[in-house]
Parts: sequence; C-alpha cells; structure tokens
Amino acid sequence: MQIGIIGLGAMGAGVARNLLKGGHDVVVWNRSPQAVETLVAEGARRADTPGGAFDAEIVFSMLAQDETIEEVVVASGALDAARKGVVHVNLSTVSVAFADRMEALHAEKGLAYVAAPVLGRPDVAAAGQLNVLCAGDPAAVAKVTPLIELFAKQVWPFGDKASRANVVKLAVNFSLASMIETLGEAGALADAYGVEPAALYEVMTGTLFAAPAYKTYSALIADARFEPAGFKLPLGLKDVRLALAAGEAQSTPLPIASVLRDAFIEAIAAGDGAKDWSALAAGAFRRSARKLG
Amino acid sequence: MQIGIIGLGAMGAGVARNLLKGGHDVVVWNRSPQAVETLVAEGARRADTPGGAFDAEIVFSMLAQDETIEEVVVASGALDAARKGVVHVNLSTVSVAFADRMEALHAEKGLAYVAAPVLGRPDVAAAGQLNVLCAGDPAAVAKVTPLIELFAKQVWPFGDKASRANVVKLAVNFSLASMIETLGEAGALADAYGVEPAALYEVMTGTLFAAPAYKTYSALIADARFEPAGFKLPLGLKDVRLALAAGEAQSTPLPIASVLRDAFIEAIAAGDGAKDWSALAAGAFRRSARKLG
Amino acid sequence: MQIGIIGLGAMGAGVARNLLKGGHDVVVWNRSPQAVETLVAEGARRADTPGGAFDAEIVFSMLAQDETIEEVVVASGALDAARKGVVHVNLSTVSVAFADRMEALHAEKGLAYVAAPVLGRPDVAAAGQLNVLCAGDPAAVAKVTPLIELFAKQVWPFGDKASRANVVKLAVNFSLASMIETLGEAGALADAYGVEPAALYEVMTGTLFAAPAYKTYSALIADARFEPAGFKLPLGLKDVRLALAAGEAQSTPLPIASVLRDAFIEAIAAGDGAKDWSALAAGAFRRSARKLG
Amino acid sequence: MQIGIIGLGAMGAGVARNLLKGGHDVVVWNRSPQAVETLVAEGARRADTPGGAFDAEIVFSMLAQDETIEEVVVASGALDAARKGVVHVNLSTVSVAFADRMEALHAEKGLAYVAAPVLGRPDVAAAGQLNVLCAGDPAAVAKVTPLIELFAKQVWPFGDKASRANVVKLAVNFSLASMIETLGEAGALADAYGVEPAALYEVMTGTLFAAPAYKTYSALIADARFEPAGFKLPLGLKDVRLALAAGEAQSTPLPIASVLRDAFIEAIAAGDGAKDWSALAAGAFRRSARKLG
Repeated sequence: MQIGIIGLGAMGAGVARNLLKGGHDVVVWNRSPQAVETLVAEGARRADTPGGAFDAEIVFSMLAQDETIEEVVVASGALDAARKGVVHVNLSTVSVAFADRMEALHAEKGLAYVAAPVLGRPDVAAAGQLNVLCAGDPAAVAKVTPLIELFAKQVWPFGDKASRANVVKLAVNFSLASMIETLGEAGALADAYGVEPAALYEVMTGTLFAAPAYKTYSALIADARFEPAGFKLPLGLKDVRLALAAGEAQSTPLPIASVLRDAFIEAIAAGDGAKDWSALAAGAFRRSARKLG
Repeated sequence: MQIGIIGLGAMGAGVARNLLKGGHDVVVWNRSPQAVETLVAEGARRADTPGGAFDAEIVFSMLAQDETIEEVVVASGALDAARKGVVHVNLSTVSVAFADRMEALHAEKGLAYVAAPVLGRPDVAAAGQLNVLCAGDPAAVAKVTPLIELFAKQVWPFGDKASRANVVKLAVNFSLASMIETLGEAGALADAYGVEPAALYEVMTGTLFAAPAYKTYSALIADARFEPAGFKLPLGLKDVRLALAAGEAQSTPLPIASVLRDAFIEAIAAGDGAKDWSALAAGAFRRSARKLG
Repeated sequence: MQIGIIGLGAMGAGVARNLLKGGHDVVVWNRSPQAVETLVAEGARRADTPGGAFDAEIVFSMLAQDETIEEVVVASGALDAARKGVVHVNLSTVSVAFADRMEALHAEKGLAYVAAPVLGRPDVAAAGQLNVLCAGDPAAVAKVTPLIELFAKQVWPFGDKASRANVVKLAVNFSLASMIETLGEAGALADAYGVEPAALYEVMTGTLFAAPAYKTYSALIADARFEPAGFKLPLGLKDVRLALAAGEAQSTPLPIASVLRDAFIEAIAAGDGAKDWSALAAGAFRRSARKLG
Repeated sequence: MQIGIIGLGAMGAGVARNLLKGGHDVVVWNRSPQAVETLVAEGARRADTPGGAFDAEIVFSMLAQDETIEEVVVASGALDAARKGVVHVNLSTVSVAFADRMEALHAEKGLAYVAAPVLGRPDVAAAGQLNVLCAGDPAAVAKVTPLIELFAKQVWPFGDKASRANVVKLAVNFSLASMIETLGEAGALADAYGVEPAALYEVMTGTLFAAPAYKTYSALIADARFEPAGFKLPLGLKDVRLALAAGEAQSTPLPIASVLRDAFIEAIAAGDGAKDWSALAAGAFRRSARKLG
C-alpha cells in the first residue's frame, strides 16, 4: 500500500521502518533532510513537500505539537494536495481542541482523520511494540488498523470521535507525571530521615507498585540519571498543560495537575529544561534544600 | 515462645492466628472483650490488662493511632509491668515523632523497641502474606524476625533507627493516596469527554501501570464500590497528615500531599467518612458537578 | 481631536461619553448596533466598520478578549484602513503575548500602539475616575495622555514596552482574585466555629485590611450578593489564566494562581458562571458542605 | 487593681507598661529574669513563680505557643495556686483546641478564662494601640475590658465562647500570610517582565489595596528588608498550621492555607527561618530562579 509519513523524529522513524519492513511503499517527508536521507537509504521514497506525502492512500504524521501540525499539514496546503479518499492517521500528542478542529477540517475536505496517539518511547517504537490509542471514523479505523499493527503491540479502540483517543493519551501522561512527582516527594521524605530513596522504591516496586512505569522511573530518579532525555521535561509540561486545558473546557478542575504544572515550570527555571521529565522528581529535594543523588 | 499481643482488630487478629498456628504461647489483650473471646476459643490466653500481655518474651501491638498506644501501652503502666528484656514490636502506623518517643521511652526502661509497620489489608494479614517494614536495635530485630515471618511474605529491613520503618510506611501510604486521587482526576477528565473511566484504567493497568495497587483501586473506583471499607477514608487522611508533619519537621514540603489532605477533608465533609479511602477519587467528579459511577 | 472608539460595552461607553464631554469629535463602532444608537444620540458619529473608526487621529479600543480584538481590529482589515500616524490605545485586558504581537504588528504597519488597561468598574468609568496603567512609545503616550485624563483619576506610566502595562493589570487582577478566595476561606473557617463571616470581615476592614477592595468585596461575600455581576466569574478565570500563561512564558510558577484557577473552574461547574467573580468565595463553604449566606 | 502578668516578651512588656501607667499594682513573671528586672525598675513587683503572678485579681498571659502555656500555667501548678475568682486573660495566639481545653480546665477549677488575642506588632503594643479580639464569660469580659482598653485601640467582642476569638485571630493571620505570598507572586510576575515590584505595589496601595497591611508589607518586600524580624517566619508557619488544624477539625479545607504552609516550609529550608515572615514573598522569586531585591 502507498503510505505517506510526515515527521521522522525518533518516534516517526521507528514507525516508518516497521511499515517498510511490512513491505509497503513508503514516502517520507521531514523538515530536516538528514532523517529523510537515512530512510531513503533504507528503501523509502522522498517527498519534497508535506503535500507530496499526502499523495498516498494512508498518511501517518508524528510531529511535536499542535503548532507544528498546523504549519506542516494545514498551512502548507498539504491537505488540499491530498489524494482523494486518503486517511490521515495522526500519531502525535495534540490538544483535544486541536484534534476536534482537525477532524472537522478533514471532514470539510472529504478526508478521513484518525487519532492514534501512542504510548512508548523510541526504543519501543523501533521494536514495533507501541500501545496505540485509536479513535475516528470506524471505516477509516478498520482500514488503518492492520498497518498500525505493524508497529503496535496492541491497539486500544476509543470509538468514533477522534479526540477521545487524545484525551486518554493526556490522562495517561498526566498520570505518569503525577507518579514522577509523587516518587520525588516520597523519596525526599524518606531521604530526610536517612532512608535512601532507592530503598523506599525497592519496597514499592517489589510490592504494591510493581509496574513497568514505577520500575523504570524510580530507577532513573534514584540514580538521578536524567540524561540523555527519553522525553524532555518541557514536553511533560506541555502534556500537563493540555490536560488542564481539556479539563477547563469541560469545567473539570485537576488540582494535582495544577501542582505538576507549577513543578515543571520550577524545574525549567532551575535549569532542567533539557533533561528527561523524570527530573521533575528532583524538585522535591530542591524545595527542602537538599540534593537528589 | 511466650508472645503478648495487644490489639485484636482485623489486622491484629490475623497476626495472632498466624502466631498461634506457629505453635506459640500467645496471650492477648483487647479493649472490647468479644475479640478476646474468639482468640481464646482458638487457643490463646487472656490478659486482663495491657500489662498482662507484657508479661511475655515478645509483645506485638497493632493499634489505630498514637493516642491509643499512648493510653494503652504507656499511661496504663504496661511498660512498667513488662518482663525484663521484653522486645516490643509495634506493627501500628504511627507518627515519626511518636516512634522516636517510644524508642527513647523503651530504652529508658531497659526494653527493646522494634518498629514493624505492615503493608496489606486484613485478608493479607489472615493469609500470613504481609510485607513488613522493620527497623530497630539489630539484636532485637534478629530475635523477632522469625516470628514476623510467620505472618509475613517478606520482611524489609530499614536499619537500627526504629522510626525509619515508619517513615517508609507513611511514604508508601502517601503514594497510594496520590495514586487514588490521580486515578480520580484522570478518570474525571476522560469521563468529561465521554470516555468511561474503566476504559482508561484498562489501558493503564494493561500497560504502564500494571501493578497490584492500580488494578485493585481502579476497579473499586470504576465501579464506585467504596463499601465495605477495607481502609477507612479518615485513616487515609491521618496517614497523609502524618506524612506532612514528618516532612515539616525536616523542612520538606510535600505539595502533592497538601492537595491530598484538602481532598480528604472535602470527602469527609461530603459525607464519605465511613467509606473506603478509594472514595477520595469521587472528589474529582464532584468538583466538576458530575457523579462517579 | 478626531477620536475613534471600538467597543461600547459598559466600560467603553463610559470612556466614550467622557471624551464627548471633553469636546472631541468621536466616531464609534460596536458589534451590536443598540449601543451605537445611544452614543450617536449623545453626539457621536457612527462608523460602519472597525476600519471607519480607525479613520481618526487616536483610536481607543475596549473589547473583551484577545480573540475579539484579533477579529475586529486585525482580521477585519481595520489596521490597513487606518489613517497614517494613528495612535491605537488598547484599553482591553489582554494577554502579554497578544500585547507583544499587537505592538509588533502596529510597528510593521507604521502605527503606534499604546497599552492602557484600566482599573475600575463601569460606574467608575462613567464617573471618569479610572486608574489607567499605560505603556508604549513615549511620544505616543505623551500624545494620548491628555485624552486618557478625561476619563482617568490617575495615569500610571510603565515605560515604553506596551505589554508591561498588561502584566501589571494581570498582577492586580490576580491579587484581587486571591483576596476573594482568601476572604472565602477565612470566612468559612470563622463560620465553622460559629463566627459570622461579616464579624470577621468587620475586624479586617476596620484594621489591617481597611482598603477599598476589601470593603467592597467582603460586603458582597458576607451578603452572598453575587448578582447582578459587576465582573463575571469567567472573566476572572480568564485573567488568572492569562497571569499563569505570562508566568509560564518566563518560567515563573504562581502556585496561588493555580489554586485560584481550579477554584474558578469548580465555581463554574457549580453553576455560578453568570455571577460576579466574588462568588468564588462561596467555594470555600461548598467544599465543607456548608452554605454561604 | 492587682494584676498578674506572665510573659514579658516584646508584646507582653508593652502590655505591662500600659497597665503600670494606668496606676495598677502589677506583679510580673517571666522565664528569663532580664525582662523582669526591667519591669521591676519601672514599678512592677516580681513573682518568683507563675503561681505568684496568679495571686492577683486579673492575670494576663502572653506566651509563644500552646506548649509554653501548658508548661507555665498548667504543669507548673499556677492555676491551683490562683487566688479565688481570678480572671485569666490569655492574649497569646493559641490553637482553637487548646483554647477549648483551657476554658474547660479553668471552669473545672472555678476560674474564669477570657481569650483576647491581639492584632499589632510590638511598637503598637507599646503605644497602647492594639486591636484586641475578645471572647469568654460575659461577666469576666466586662470586668477585664477597662483594663484591656489601657493597651487597646479597640476591643472586638466575639461572644461567650473563648475559642471564637482565637479562630478570628487565626483567620486574620492566615489572611496576612496569603497577602504576603500573593504580593510575592504578583511581584515576581511583574519582575519577570521588567516591571519593578515596587512599581506594581505603588499602583496597588495607591488604589484598590490602600490598606495598612499592604503598605507595610509591600514596602518590606520591595526592599527585601526582612531583618530585623517583627514576626518571625516560623511563627507565621505555626499560625497557618493552626488555621489548617482548626479547619480540619470542622471538615473545612483551606487550599490557599495549604499552599502557604508549603511555602513557609520551603522558606525555612532555604535558610530564612530567622527572618520576618514577609520573607515568604522571596519564595516566588526563588522558584523562578531569580532574586528578590
């Protein structure tokens, strides 16, 4: 099948490779040419414009934020250049309001829009083991699901309103951020009494909190190993901000998310903006004038 | 071995039964006589006063809070009636300051004090599968560990300062409360956009948050099944308050815990004081004028 | 002098009348025609488009929010229709980012932009007694100051960068919102112990807090007199949100503002969205399951 | 009249002097003898024990906190040594629960207890211009009011339940702390955009917030003049903690107070524990990695 791919960051490139491996005709576009060269060397074709990638049956996009998608997909005219009947699968984490706007805009232009934000870091994408939250027009979803399965461990359906998949993604990332801050505060409390945070985390992940997220993040926090970043701290702030905005639009206060937002901003002010978002946990130590790690 | 047990609530009774099963000579005291009768029928001996239970080699206490222990163990004169060389193992969740005071008081009187707060609900205690956080004088800890193992799945050592085990316990319960509130807020956000909280929780517990605590509590929350209470909401408030007090004593702010404290108080004001602490999650729905379940 | 006025709500109309009284040639535009008729009957001229109001020496705009100004002043083409050399004085409360964008856009088009957000309610505007926070190009500010003085009690200069006046306005409104919530919480605490909130407020405004804002708002709160709204609750939410956004853009967390944002959202969910923003204070009573007033 | 005074700190000494000036027979007790010497030189008599000061018709106490009063007035046996019919006027800021306990204890012993916490700093006490919040048995209040008027600008009655005066005092101090933090955050926001905090405060105190508390504290904050301390930061934390505890006892959450509590703790961790509580405002700057002043 002819597949367009827009955005070849670490996540998008992993997706592209799995589609290539699946034997598909993949045409790629990326802002910086380096990533395009690499994929072309692996068998992809190059699109000179975003619109070129929309000359396909199905298009996947994986971009950083609303504004980038607005610019690359909408303002560039790519949607107007799209092949008739194309299904656009947006893998990016976007705001609920933007997902609604995209769904409406595609409908106006006679195109199908599927929201399919993913759970998993770049290594998981490369391994084709992402968890994919998926919502949109049922026929379109049915059409793209076999392709998504080439890079997914599991596809989680959330009905026919695209933005619902985005709400779930934001709720999950908010929960991760809450876990990170909570591990930081619990660790700082333990540390204040001479208990190594790692010893506390060992109990937690050995008993009630024996989950992948707790194991991964508590190890990063206990070692203060925040670089290289798997997911940069300002992206965490962005997702919490989007969760808060989605809540506000439906008159739903999220007091924990508000605390997290302040903590992210404080972490950026403290100079941790280039680090992994697990560095959020260092704030609990900083506020008590101690140092994590 | 001669073992005293003070406090035969659901947790203490489970501990007592496992010690009886281990073939020990168990003497029990409880404020209300009913629980004593039951244990006596199962082979325990009755103590008429707390001091009577301290006429043993090792004493376990499992009481609700600092004030109760102060009254039953200290003000009653039980410590003064204690057999020489007794080791007192306090399984209760107490404040850090109280643990320090108890340790000092026992030392003054030539007694050994071991803090051994537990993780697990009454059914886990009955099954002898508790996780026990343990700290205190090394010789005393060594002496009581084989007995603790009669009701523990695992003993987690935290060194020779008793209160460290209590800090860890408070940090774990704080983490659980944070998880409950976060599940509530994430669920309310999903619900506001037409996604069933249960569907969100299924993704979470099927992927990053596949941990016992998340599975147990998200099911209770999704079904709004808050009665009967496994752990009453005001006890959750108490533990968060103790975590905050411990933080304050070491100049360690815990902003997430502060939000939880307010949320617990609000839940009690809303009439949920007799429910399980998982009812905390209903607050996120209440604040947005919707109803959970 | 020829003066254009865009936006004839309660505030804008008050400004327009004071300029008419000052003997100026005032041309007005408003979305709904009713307000235009009234002003025309009082001596103003009608502009059929926003651009018509920009055919003047100085233009004042007083509109509800960024989006409205974007639409009315920018998207309508009014700036392109502006008379050469016009000074646009924006009295509206806008975001810092929008003020920066407006200043740059005016500069591009060779126009002068002055930010002049105001403190005071409609009756104060009518009386010509507003406090006006003013910033922008010094020559432009000098030119418009005598006109502003026709409706101001005092003009407070904040230098040559327009958005600084907007930051100050947001900081003041944030401070007012904080005062309202604090009065609510302090009142709820007093009420919980049988002290009338009014009795507490009497001490406060009779001693340390003897300020106009405290006197006005504590009276509204004590009487639960939230209608008619002088400044609607969602506008208070908007201003706190803009303060938070301005803070975030400069890595400045504002934890009190975060609590206020949640409280505003909760008040809207509780059905108080059409009331005065002083109704925020009712939340402190609601959270403790009591009722204010 | 024979008047006992317990506690000769800066506040208590001011009260004592005004009573001496009023021509009364004043007998004083203080833990450290220096302050006693000074007052004796001014005409007071020395009591060798707290009980000695209770050999009077009316006793005023002004001590730092619940624990001190418990020790000095209760544990010392002073109440048992009290002259029959004595009225004890407690000027200290104590917890609501402690006030209730003291009232009951005095009643048991046939003594009268009046709560009369004060508003004002040492210089105001010296000038005899305190605002005094007063509650307790009406006959006792009537008897002591003429004496209180010797050091008060105004006496504010709050009925016959003593602890109500204490609730009001805590509510006022909570409001002051909220004002300080809000001034800090508003100032940090302004500063982040190049506006001097002093310029913002000038607008505020020149318009809506023209109150003594705002004028006094905004000047201290703008100049970062936190020493010498008029009221030390940990005392501010104590009062906010007491307000939170009073709220919790009546199921009344105080989310702003929770934020303040964390901010106070953070300030102490940052090394500001010996400074005036207005140093709380520096936290807003610290969190954004800037410096106040």
